[in-house]
Amino acid sequence: MKHKFTNDYSSLCHPSILKFLASLNEEQNVAYGLDKHSLNAERYIKDIFESPRGQVYFIAGGTMTNLLFISYALRPYEAVISLETGHINVHETGAIEATGHKIITVKGSNGKMSPSDILNVLKIYKDEHMVKPKLVYISDSTEIGTIYTRKELIALNEVCREHDLYLFIDGARLGSALTSKENDVEPGLFGQICDAFYVGGAKNGLLLGEALVINNPELQKDFRYHIKNKGAMISKGYLLGAIFEEAFRNGLYFDIAKDTNETADYLKEQLANLEVNMLPSPTNQIFAIFNKEQAKKLINEYGLELWEERDNVVVVRFVVSFTTKKADVDELISFMKTNL
Amino acid sequence: MKHKFTNDYSSLCHPSILKFLASLNEEQNVAYGLDKHSLNAERYIKDIFESPRGQVYFIAGGTMTNLLFISYALRPYEAVISLETGHINVHETGAIEATGHKIITVKGSNGKMSPSDILNVLKIYKDEHMVKPKLVYISDSTEIGTIYTRKELIALNEVCREHDLYLFIDGARLGSALTSKENDVEPGLFGQICDAFYVGGAKNGLLLGEALVINNPELQKDFRYHIKNKGAMISKGYLLGAIFEEAFRNGLYFDIAKDTNETADYLKEQLANLEVNMLPSPTNQIFAIFNKEQAKKLINEYGLELWEERDNVVVVRFVVSFTTKKADVDELISFMKTNL
Amino acid sequence: MKHKFTNDYSSLCHPSILKFLASLNEEQNVAYGLDKHSLNAERYIKDIFESPRGQVYFIAGGTMTNLLFISYALRPYEAVISLETGHINVHETGAIEATGHKIITVKGSNGKMSPSDILNVLKIYKDEHMVKPKLVYISDSTEIGTIYTRKELIALNEVCREHDLYLFIDGARLGSALTSKENDVEPGLFGQICDAFYVGGAKNGLLLGEALVINNPELQKDFRYHIKNKGAMISKGYLLGAIFEEAFRNGLYFDIAKDTNETADYLKEQLANLEVNMLPSPTNQIFAIFNKEQAKKLINEYGLELWEERDNVVVVRFVVSFTTKKADVDELISFMKTNL
Amino acid sequence: MKHKFTNDYSSLCHPSILKFLASLNEEQNVAYGLDKHSLNAERYIKDIFESPRGQVYFIAGGTMTNLLFISYALRPYEAVISLETGHINVHETGAIEATGHKIITVKGSNGKMSPSDILNVLKIYKDEHMVKPKLVYISDSTEIGTIYTRKELIALNEVCREHDLYLFIDGARLGSALTSKENDVEPGLFGQICDAFYVGGAKNGLLLGEALVINNPELQKDFRYHIKNKGAMISKGYLLGAIFEEAFRNGLYFDIAKDTNETADYLKEQLANLEVNMLPSPTNQIFAIFNKEQAKKLINEYGLELWEERDNVVVVRFVVSFTTKKADVDELISFMKTNL
Repeated sequence: MKHKFTNDYSSLCHPSILKFLASLNEEQNVAYGLDKHSLNAERYIKDIFESPRGQVYFIAGGTMTNLLFISYALRPYEAVISLETGHINVHETGAIEATGHKIITVKGSNGKMSPSDILNVLKIYKDEHMVKPKLVYISDSTEIGTIYTRKELIALNEVCREHDLYLFIDGARLGSALTSKENDVEPGLFGQICDAFYVGGAKNGLLLGEALVINNPELQKDFRYHIKNKGAMISKGYLLGAIFEEAFRNGLYFDIAKDTNETADYLKEQLANLEVNMLPSPTNQIFAIFNKEQAKKLINEYGLELWEERDNVVVVRFVVSFTTKKADVDELISFMKTNL
Repeated sequence: MKHKFTNDYSSLCHPSILKFLASLNEEQNVAYGLDKHSLNAERYIKDIFESPRGQVYFIAGGTMTNLLFISYALRPYEAVISLETGHINVHETGAIEATGHKIITVKGSNGKMSPSDILNVLKIYKDEHMVKPKLVYISDSTEIGTIYTRKELIALNEVCREHDLYLFIDGARLGSALTSKENDVEPGLFGQICDAFYVGGAKNGLLLGEALVINNPELQKDFRYHIKNKGAMISKGYLLGAIFEEAFRNGLYFDIAKDTNETADYLKEQLANLEVNMLPSPTNQIFAIFNKEQAKKLINEYGLELWEERDNVVVVRFVVSFTTKKADVDELISFMKTNL
Repeated sequence: MKHKFTNDYSSLCHPSILKFLASLNEEQNVAYGLDKHSLNAERYIKDIFESPRGQVYFIAGGTMTNLLFISYALRPYEAVISLETGHINVHETGAIEATGHKIITVKGSNGKMSPSDILNVLKIYKDEHMVKPKLVYISDSTEIGTIYTRKELIALNEVCREHDLYLFIDGARLGSALTSKENDVEPGLFGQICDAFYVGGAKNGLLLGEALVINNPELQKDFRYHIKNKGAMISKGYLLGAIFEEAFRNGLYFDIAKDTNETADYLKEQLANLEVNMLPSPTNQIFAIFNKEQAKKLINEYGLELWEERDNVVVVRFVVSFTTKKADVDELISFMKTNL
Repeated sequence: MKHKFTNDYSSLCHPSILKFLASLNEEQNVAYGLDKHSLNAERYIKDIFESPRGQVYFIAGGTMTNLLFISYALRPYEAVISLETGHINVHETGAIEATGHKIITVKGSNGKMSPSDILNVLKIYKDEHMVKPKLVYISDSTEIGTIYTRKELIALNEVCREHDLYLFIDGARLGSALTSKENDVEPGLFGQICDAFYVGGAKNGLLLGEALVINNPELQKDFRYHIKNKGAMISKGYLLGAIFEEAFRNGLYFDIAKDTNETADYLKEQLANLEVNMLPSPTNQIFAIFNKEQAKKLINEYGLELWEERDNVVVVRFVVSFTTKKADVDELISFMKTNL
């Protein structure tokens, strides 16, 4: 059976994770995330991302992590600023609005938000007949595979501080951002330049789970109540804790991300050799442009997602995951040479 | 280290589950629960619980399952009827109310609700200045370890049908109910006498997850939208599917529950021999009465939950899980003989 | 047509109110409650109830006022403590739960809550698996016509301060409480012993509206955003402002309440003369006990609300309003003498 | 004091309304909107707008009316389609999102939505990872003073029927639409081509209130529960009923609107004579373009709302209300001649 390039969560997990879980089978652990594995994982994550006063919570999925933090941080009449392409705005079935909050959208550029996007919103929303913008939501790597530079993140943080806005970073694919060849951001920056962020597991070869890091101590109080209130507290919290413990004990998390990015870079090279047009992306999502017939064949054969139709061409998305091998790329390229 | 009798979710999972997961590691699966493992698991469950028109959804936790179904079934001004001791009323941090719905409580008897409890509510709530009762929530086995008889379930169903109420059964510990020595209910009854129920995994030796079965076709439309809207759709849905596929392919689910109940029965015998007073419970939760000093020792040594303080005595809860061995019981009993 | 004793909001309003409104017809006023009439009314109310740092908001109805303040004051996982008989618990169709919050109920005594009721709740609710009690809701006069003494209010305030709970007083019938013959509370106490309270208009002869006074400055920020967010900001806010300006400029509010209480006292005397059994109530709601046949006649003839059925007797409610005259009472008593 | 052109709700109400209210002062009415005045008003409105199977509810404000109907009509994961300029999207402080629903925005043209706007949304939103579009919200007259033609309304209705969408029309300024010189729509069309609409009172010289008409019988069940659940049920419902009874008994509602439009037309003529550029608006809102200095003077002197800044010019809004006289217009024009 052919390897699919549909997404980065179609394969269960890296073998080390299952192995580690199997080794715990004799243990009895405290429930609800108060166990030693969760504590170890929290310690590793706070060290690596330099968030000494942070608190870490392990959540089963990304949409849940987004809605948990956002609905905690905001008062009922406060709103999120997000890109139009932001995951919370497009692909979460209104989960943020379901907690009562409006998403104010901005266009941004290249999948990224800039301080001027935020300032433009603040100019418009200024009295009680409109929602009050209070939290900026960005994703890194972004929904279209781009990444923020150190300078860009610092600038966003500054405008947020200046205007009393929270900055929250969706890191469902943070691994791919931090291990990209083009990355100039140290993990430790994330402990400093935002109120909260999360480190995605499901899209980076872990079994499941996202690690939410709340840097801002003012946003930590009673957060466990909030998790339970939203139905997100897992009885076997130590399962999530153990997954992240294993991922961060010896760098496995970044190793997986780096390998995946390298395979993605290899695919980009091969596509470039075939003179395929691609949108700029330094991570494991590759957006490439084909005519309709070509796109149809690739979608059928490799499970690609159709991203966008533009006049006569189609943008499709290749996603390289931790189980994609160079041989899989070679097979794909060979198919393209023969069939497109 | 001593075996603890704290709860039935302190041990990761039955080894067969992890083994099965390991066998899937080469697969790529469709995401979000539309994969073959989820479909297989759904088929097994619909067969066993005789719900041919039912639909099955795999959810990461019990509180989430409760809030998902209840918030789907109710209009904004409609309410749930629950026992005062109901899990949704006490131990879910307001998760039902957080979706906008009032819980109307009744006292019940022996941890169980009866038709007259429901009828009493209907007498009171009858105009638009009060919420409209619309859904009856019960747990089986109950929060205090008792189980419903076939006759009781049928009677509840009848009163619900007659008064246009939904009946929803929390089966977080359904395995323990159905394999109890005192049980007279066939699994197939659950496909017939309620609008929805769920089959608990986390408390019965599975890695995680609950299988929600919606029998009533009128309550199925767009349910996947609702799951996503509440943040409960897991990208690797096939993980949950595979867990339940393995659990129900060859009866593992019931084997685990039966073994656990047998160990619990053994513990009850031993406690009876020591002339310990116990509340009636034919399942794996045992509520036993001690004086304060005894209770304190047992709580410290075996992680028991303090259930209730009554004048001079204390009710503590022993929970037997799939990892509890007869030897663990013997050790506990021996400790009691020496130290209490 | 006979005068009905159904409730205190079946007559439009005191003539002075309409007269004052008619006098404003040439004015153009700033919208949304920022007008001079609202400011005047706010000043009067802050003076009378001694809330120098308070803020006053005029809201169209009592249920809305309750849900506005409670949903503002609470974090998502926090809960209200109310009497079982509390208006928010029984007669608001789940409006509080619709904003996401559980109501924890206590029995109380004589329609009133005591510090020990609160302390009992705090003993039970103490970890993140249960909601967090955060706000105490009481009504004065109560739902059964009783009133709090100065000492009782101060004691409730103390227990709230000590345990970091908010105290919120529903004053839908505050006029009747403060002008009762048995009252020992100065209006000024309300500015001191609670975080917020409201002064009811609709049940005290005003056209409509309730005046919410938020004493606690920490609970005032952006409250206007919250009003609008919940759909409660009236464009012609000056209508509500003018009503309360007129009511508090020269004591009209208390005059109406006092007159009403006096008529109610007269009715109580007459009923006592007829040896009718009544529950204790020093205000304008009178709960009286009759046999079923008598009750039926009174309900039919005078629109009484059936309050409670007890074995062979029935409790009905007479409500005296600002339009009830002594002659109406005499007519009622005469009917009773002849027909019961 | 100069007449302001700020909005159409800065003057209390037409004298006939207050007079009628004064005439009711001896009455006792059934509470909560079940009185004879509400029934009369409902009958008039159902006749005029030709909604024989409709139900009419009187609500205190427009934002509340919008949130009530929308939150009733939608399932939790369903969304509204609105223009970017839609009142619910811009000026209701997230009130719709506060009930849990996303607003999907489209650009439209000339303040109006067209079938193709709707069809474009349906092309994008098509699986459970996105919200499900279910209700189309438009305003007539629109937020920028334009009105829909008969043909346009019928076309919107058709596309909604075809795609199983509800059509809901915000008629906060319906009077101005239906009495505009350019109007070609009979009131009776509104009973036929939408699932619900409302007839605005506050902006058309009534004291307060909006009359929500639900044409679609499937959207009427238990609506009174919903009103109470959202805090919008006024105890003195007969106040709102009486206002609308008076407004529709003898055509007062349309008389007010027509007079207001005529005064607005007079103002437009005078502005045209002064060669002021205006956006097209056949109703009582006039959007006119000035340079910054001129705009500043007008805003200061006449309380105009600054609508939009464009490069070197400014759009300001003149609103003519039921209290604006031709002499007020003349005074304004004379000021402009002298001072701009």
